[in-house]
Amino acid sequence: MRPYEKDPAAIYAQSFATVADEARLDRFPSQMHPLITRLIHACGMVEIADRLAFSPGVSEAGHIALRGGAPILCDCEMVGAGIIRRYLPAGNDVIVTLNDPRTLDHAKSIGNTRSAAAVEFWEPHIAGAVVAIGNAPTALFHLLDLIDQGFPKPAVILGFPVGFVGAAESKAELAANPRGVDFVALRGRKGGSAMASAAVNALAAGLPEVSNG
Amino acid sequence: MRPYEKDPAAIYAQSFATVADEARLDRFPSQMHPLITRLIHACGMVEIADRLAFSPGVSEAGHIALRGGAPILCDCEMVGAGIIRRYLPAGNDVIVTLNDPRTLDHAKSIGNTRSAAAVEFWEPHIAGAVVAIGNAPTALFHLLDLIDQGFPKPAVILGFPVGFVGAAESKAELAANPRGVDFVALRGRKGGSAMASAAVNALAAGLPEVSNG
Repeated sequence: MRPYEKDPAAIYAQSFATVADEARLDRFPSQMHPLITRLIHACGMVEIADRLAFSPGVSEAGHIALRGGAPILCDCEMVGAGIIRRYLPAGNDVIVTLNDPRTLDHAKSIGNTRSAAAVEFWEPHIAGAVVAIGNAPTALFHLLDLIDQGFPKPAVILGFPVGFVGAAESKAELAANPRGVDFVALRGRKGGSAMASAAVNALAAGLPEVSNG
Repeated sequence: MRPYEKDPAAIYAQSFATVADEARLDRFPSQMHPLITRLIHACGMVEIADRLAFSPGVSEAGHIALRGGAPILCDCEMVGAGIIRRYLPAGNDVIVTLNDPRTLDHAKSIGNTRSAAAVEFWEPHIAGAVVAIGNAPTALFHLLDLIDQGFPKPAVILGFPVGFVGAAESKAELAANPRGVDFVALRGRKGGSAMASAAVNALAAGLPEVSNG
């Protein structure tokens, strides 16, 4: 067996140092560096920094929303599972409606996916909320459609749907017209629940692993 | 708003067709194609096919283990959250010990991470189990170390730790010496819980989205 690093603080320090060495962060406002660092750390790909679309105020808007108690709306259970609860500044609710018993029937009635149907059940919670999408392009598309129809607006959209059908397109739609909502999104096919959770964790707490080192 | 595909069956069909068109699958045994397809589908990166290390019998070994009721041991909650329970052929247990109350103290006593310490609590379950690692390199390293010390062997290791410190190295160690255990692992820094869950789902059920159209 080869030797390996076993100290959590050293692992975080080496990891964040690699991001600083290899990723191109200079085009981002400095307040966004913890968010970008955590996104890269979650996927092991420094090159995603070059394909992030964002509104410059997204980190501050997300942090303020969470401190004010805003709920976090996730498109799937994996995103919810990746949110570090002890980082949340106001014991914020983490809400996933994908497995709500009404979702399957509602999907059939609106002619869309279960992930899209689940977004409609966010309505009582979404004004000023943090939305984290880490799986389904149809959830992001349908959210934007609903906002166009007068659905309440969240404070922030974290756009990380993944895959070959609609992921790149839904994030391009968000970046082209964010409907006045602060956002960050990874252009293209890549994404995933780990990035969506990492973005929430960064908005909640930055990089506490550094100061706690 | 641009138009987008809303039919789940069409989304799966287009997605799997993209994998078939773009990914290089010919070096894999045909029984592994559903596994590789699901891995690629989970991350949106066809190029990972070129960096997968594997034992040729991994799909069959995993399928047999799960049909026989083997538990699934995960290194973090996100991996567990991504496993589609209705696909599991024997109501298999999904076990995550990372947040076991003993883990933090045990990590200190062994001088390793919480993720590594949590692996030791797999001992009563691991003989013949399916191990899915989607986050922590130290969990994979420590598991291999424990096997070298006589720990019971799982049937299959799904190796997808991610990141800059130990991820590539732990998967290289597994691929160089899998200790007689069937395995699949993505070489390099990339990985993640979505891939680890996808691998479990493939071992459990292949690609039922195709036949269910």
